[in-house]
Amino acid sequence: MSHGKQFTLYSHSFGPNGWKVAFVLNELGLQYETIYFDFGKKEQKAPEHIKYNPNGRIPTLIDHGNNDFVVWESNAIMIYLVEKYDKEHKISVSDPSEKMYQLQWLFFQASGQGPYFGQAGWFILWHHEKLPSAIERYQKEVIRVFGVLESVLSKQDWLVGGRCTIVDLSFITWNEAAIKHMVPDYNGFNLEKDFPAVYKWHIALLARESVSKVLEEKESLLAKK
Amino acid sequence: MSHGKQFTLYSHSFGPNGWKVAFVLNELGLQYETIYFDFGKKEQKAPEHIKYNPNGRIPTLIDHGNNDFVVWESNAIMIYLVEKYDKEHKISVSDPSEKMYQLQWLFFQASGQGPYFGQAGWFILWHHEKLPSAIERYQKEVIRVFGVLESVLSKQDWLVGGRCTIVDLSFITWNEAAIKHMVPDYNGFNLEKDFPAVYKWHIALLARESVSKVLEEKESLLAKK
Repeated sequence: MSHGKQFTLYSHSFGPNGWKVAFVLNELGLQYETIYFDFGKKEQKAPEHIKYNPNGRIPTLIDHGNNDFVVWESNAIMIYLVEKYDKEHKISVSDPSEKMYQLQWLFFQASGQGPYFGQAGWFILWHHEKLPSAIERYQKEVIRVFGVLESVLSKQDWLVGGRCTIVDLSFITWNEAAIKHMVPDYNGFNLEKDFPAVYKWHIALLARESVSKVLEEKESLLAKK
Repeated sequence: MSHGKQFTLYSHSFGPNGWKVAFVLNELGLQYETIYFDFGKKEQKAPEHIKYNPNGRIPTLIDHGNNDFVVWESNAIMIYLVEKYDKEHKISVSDPSEKMYQLQWLFFQASGQGPYFGQAGWFILWHHEKLPSAIERYQKEVIRVFGVLESVLSKQDWLVGGRCTIVDLSFITWNEAAIKHMVPDYNGFNLEKDFPAVYKWHIALLARESVSKVLEEKESLLAKK
């Protein structure tokens, strides 16, 4: 590494998953350099990245402070960071049962939120053909997932452990994308009215110093495009 | 629990994710009773299940031997079972770095294999309208994921730790579904010829006693329908 920081993060300016890792690195005060891939040039599929991550997607993290340990999959990276660098459990839990819930919710985010929200975005923004019934399928799923979150967050402020953890942080960017791009025009959608607890939780997450700093960086990168 | 066994598994006869948990329970010789929901009657969304799993999907596991501890999300359940009941690491790893790789690949299965293979199945088998460009999108993704697996399995027999673990077991049912229903007619697809290492790995997994027993149970349930 020539940048002198402890971590190298391979990421992308638009995609939601790399920013999740940036939230955690900032929460823990860790120093990192981000390499933003140009997906148009398929840089994420180049041999220099595939040697670290055979999936050829982002994010990928290298920890130069741990023998250049490499880990990919955003939620696995988040767990790696808190297991190794959050000994005081600032944004993670320590009780064995709560650790299991932390894992359960991270898998829900990885399999139930990200992919469905991502497909909504795909068919709305990128697919070469307009397919209203495909768009509707995924918009409905976005609304369903907000409903699942509402059913829990209407009874508690945070998903696990009574405080903000990597679980809550993992949902932010896909929720932002959904609110702005995927369901704003869906059946009069209004997050604050329809899902008040999710709204309150999301606003509280956006107000965190690490999150607002990282999202400002994201906006400034996108503004340059 | 009236069935007297240590675990209750809420599952479904056709969906791939409940069977992953059954593989692990059988590998570890644990006693369980499966409750198969009737999705036609939306039993998985009924209050009796939602109180355990707010997502209203399967699988959900209750461990009556651990104060009726409840965990959902198939890959979180698999980790719960090996952390608690695989002290000899028959199907899990123990080294901290390998545990991180175990997690990384489980997140890849949960976010990169299951959801995309599931969408291929959805648009081929269930969607009310034929959408060739949506089907093609997900068939391509199935082939891409087989390619990622091939790139790793052409250099090693198992994904993590040099032996069969929960990681390998987590891929079986979605791979089976893809081979049989999603890509059999896609551009002359032939798993053995196109992805020889994936084929060898998949055949080795199917030959395991626990896997063949569970898949026979699945077939016999489906035959009754």
